[in-house]
Amino acid sequence: MTGTSRNHRLDIAYNGVNYHGWQVQPRLATVQGRLEEILAALYGRPVALHGSGRTDAGVHAYGQVASFFAAPLIPATQLPRVLNDRLPLDIRIRAAAVVPDDFHARRSATSKIYRYHLWLGPCDDPFVAPFVFPVPFRPDIPAMQAGARRLCGTHDFRSFCARAEADANHIRTIHRFDVSRRGRLVFFRVEANGFLQQMVRNMVGTLLEIGRGRIPVADLDSILAARDRRRAGPTIAARGLFLLRVRYPRRPAPAVRERD
Amino acid sequence: MTGTSRNHRLDIAYNGVNYHGWQVQPRLATVQGRLEEILAALYGRPVALHGSGRTDAGVHAYGQVASFFAAPLIPATQLPRVLNDRLPLDIRIRAAAVVPDDFHARRSATSKIYRYHLWLGPCDDPFVAPFVFPVPFRPDIPAMQAGARRLCGTHDFRSFCARAEADANHIRTIHRFDVSRRGRLVFFRVEANGFLQQMVRNMVGTLLEIGRGRIPVADLDSILAARDRRRAGPTIAARGLFLLRVRYPRRPAPAVRERD
Repeated sequence: MTGTSRNHRLDIAYNGVNYHGWQVQPRLATVQGRLEEILAALYGRPVALHGSGRTDAGVHAYGQVASFFAAPLIPATQLPRVLNDRLPLDIRIRAAAVVPDDFHARRSATSKIYRYHLWLGPCDDPFVAPFVFPVPFRPDIPAMQAGARRLCGTHDFRSFCARAEADANHIRTIHRFDVSRRGRLVFFRVEANGFLQQMVRNMVGTLLEIGRGRIPVADLDSILAARDRRRAGPTIAARGLFLLRVRYPRRPAPAVRERD
Repeated sequence: MTGTSRNHRLDIAYNGVNYHGWQVQPRLATVQGRLEEILAALYGRPVALHGSGRTDAGVHAYGQVASFFAAPLIPATQLPRVLNDRLPLDIRIRAAAVVPDDFHARRSATSKIYRYHLWLGPCDDPFVAPFVFPVPFRPDIPAMQAGARRLCGTHDFRSFCARAEADANHIRTIHRFDVSRRGRLVFFRVEANGFLQQMVRNMVGTLLEIGRGRIPVADLDSILAARDRRRAGPTIAARGLFLLRVRYPRRPAPAVRERD
């Protein structure tokens, strides 16, 4: 970084429907790709944007966080407006701040919160349908709640990881995992110090199998112990999954706008 | 129609963002076009679908109504599921019914309700931004309410019609026109026995000029009397406009599902 470069934090919300996920991929529309294009045009040179983590194709975000170094050409208070004027409406900058140099959106994160939206029965609202996963049966909510509680704590989550690697660390800590229902909507809200690849989708897929009576709650202990992806339930589609929030140890410089 | 053809009514909701409006146009994605394709494949022959009216490119609908004649191959109770399985998620069939032969979605309609969503200030929610028209000032709500009341009743609305024709009838009756605010959202809800081309967008554009103090409420009388499009305010963008409901003299055959 040059001496005058400043570290910037962006809080980003996006509707993932039209994107092949967060991470840059050649010839595909991605959220990171779109943002880096606009930042490069704005700052007159390539800008490397570091997200808190990838989100899969179709996953939405209310609270994605990314950081980048750039000359302080644009005051942080102006950045959301300047970027939002150039971004498509399905990507919005919710806040921007200049942060200490050692802040890194991925490495500094202490926990992340994801939320999954399921819909009981067919959904005939075109403004809701793209954002919920339709479930054609009535799942047993208390059974899924019991299952979510069993997954809380520190475990080796290899059985819930898409592509486990021999020497990698698959131990994560789930701080909280809530299942709730409001009308036809069923919410899964999970907070952990980190997530393995497709871990949320695999956990929710497994809890749904519990909810329809195909896997007993008590089996979760042996599923975890097996450290074998084939033992857990299926990977649920990304449709309905939101990255809600990324937490950091301390609040960096005050955000541009007050949060609700 | 053949002797065995039955008249069908569809209640349709759609997110207009990805469509060039309701009406079929060559080589463009339209809601009617998409529906007619799927109906033709389903019934094995071309199906002419009559909507209650066109909606402009980008306009959304919660309660569009359309009717078509076809052999009763599929029970009306099954039609929403069968069509929704084949339709993109941004077009949803909310109800279907077999109706008397003299029902026609456009000609039988007695009134329509449109709702416009404005947003005060920049909108940083990617799930809301495509559905609201951003207003960069604080409009005077009571002045706009007074203006909306003046437009109620039976008038020649030529001053609010995109392309008035010499001999055409431009007289319409507005039954109700409400302006309300909830936080940063401002709603315009208007019910009339019919709307001229871009009439809602021109009326809301004019009320916004009243709301920012550029046109006095009292001028509405002379604007109406002028019967000249140039006298009224600008056409507001379609973004944020919803066809909410179409009313008919009597309820046709009971809808497939109960409404909320």
